[in-house]
Amino acid sequence: MELKYRPIGVVNSPFKRIKEIQIRKYTKVDGFDLIQGELEIFKEFEDGLKDTEGFSHLMVLFAFYKSKSYRLHIKPLLDKKLRGIFSTRSPHRPNPIGLTIVKVIERRRNILKVSGVDMIDGTPILDIKPYTLRDKKSSLELGWLKDKIE
Amino acid sequence: MELKYRPIGVVNSPFKRIKEIQIRKYTKVDGFDLIQGELEIFKEFEDGLKDTEGFSHLMVLFAFYKSKSYRLHIKPLLDKKLRGIFSTRSPHRPNPIGLTIVKVIERRRNILKVSGVDMIDGTPILDIKPYTLRDKKSSLELGWLKDKIE
Repeated sequence: MELKYRPIGVVNSPFKRIKEIQIRKYTKVDGFDLIQGELEIFKEFEDGLKDTEGFSHLMVLFAFYKSKSYRLHIKPLLDKKLRGIFSTRSPHRPNPIGLTIVKVIERRRNILKVSGVDMIDGTPILDIKPYTLRDKKSSLELGWLKDKIE
Repeated sequence: MELKYRPIGVVNSPFKRIKEIQIRKYTKVDGFDLIQGELEIFKEFEDGLKDTEGFSHLMVLFAFYKSKSYRLHIKPLLDKKLRGIFSTRSPHRPNPIGLTIVKVIERRRNILKVSGVDMIDGTPILDIKPYTLRDKKSSLELGWLKDKIE
């Protein structure tokens, strides 16, 4: 079974290359909080953005479009051990789809200005969803990430 | 540009039909919290599940495989007004990809037993990611959903 999707827009980001993102200072919990960018949605889908500006946070699904292969065990940036790919947020996954929760600054027609951007410039956007109370979880256990994040 | 993905597994859910999910009692914030099910990952990808059981919560990306069309404005279950599709979690989206955060109960080889299931039985799974501190957001504004959720 093959599942086919197409971009609904593109991320305009200050990061032009992957290497600019994968550095130590961004591994903090709030590492990307101040990074601003735009979600530029194609005109064809602009009407679907109605009401998004009422939410403080949006979930962005996007294509890790530079990722060309994957391994099931990888060594994350923050760890020295091999971890299962599904216990990491590595872009090199069987289905290279990324997920980032951004903060809405404002919307101007088909463009959402947001902060919390950790995608590279030109990243194809697959979907935007509102972040709701259901997505805010408590009593988290963080597996191998515990003690590795500040 | 066309983006192609393939299922890495399937959801085993107590919900056999869409109608069983879209009912009032499930619209509460914790509506699905007690609903248990399985993420059955294909053997080919089993090794990628290593370490996932250390996390209390996982994000599941999946295909809304019963969704055959979309409209940019829709009337959500909880509202009487038309809303932009990207301000809702409706399955009828330009790219019918769903996102649910589940709680891990246990892993047995290629099967994760979880709670918080709101997918229907047979839903194709696209990806599993750990839910981390970055995904827990505060000071939420909930747009049109405000006052509509309990």
